Amino acid sequence: MVPFHPMLAKVHITLKNGVLDPQGKAIHSALNQLGFEGVSNVNLGKYLEITLDTMPEMEAKKKVREMCEKLLANTVIESYQITLVP
Amino acid sequence: MVPFHPMLAKVHITLKNGVLDPQGKAIHSALNQLGFEGVSNVNLGKYLEITLDTMPEMEAKKKVREMCEKLLANTVIESYQITLVP
Repeated sequence: MVPFHPMLAKVHITLKNGVLDPQGKAIHSALNQLGFEGVSNVNLGKYLEITLDTMPEMEAKKKVREMCEKLLANTVIESYQITLVP
Repeated sequence: MVPFHPMLAKVHITLKNGVLDPQGKAIHSALNQLGFEGVSNVNLGKYLEITLDTMPEMEAKKKVREMCEKLLANTVIESYQITLVP
């Protein structure tokens, strides 16, 4: 039997390499102004927690991938990473 | 000898329990309108990748915690979680 249980999908959306990150740069310079030293780079991304109803893990992964492609991420400039937590 | 190497701090900033999440709600209803079923909740948070210069792990953790308290998170409504990756 395939195990069915509610699932949490953790989705990280980050800018692709080479895409300018003005928000990350702003945070970096704010940290410098506050006197934090030893920071060489800051990148800002999005983090989503999506709670899914009972469904098989394979289906959940497929569904969340589709959500990312259609709505959550702008795949021209962003990449996404999905982690399923039972 | 304490190992020194550049480090990546991954910071997750999420709204505390009980705080309204209008952005998460908007994404949830957009997913419904796109025909995605089986989603019971969506929460939106921030994800930061902070690259730090060579420093001991203890110092890095302390420093990033201070960054969260002073700038990155609004600790009245947000909580943060720090993961250090060597």
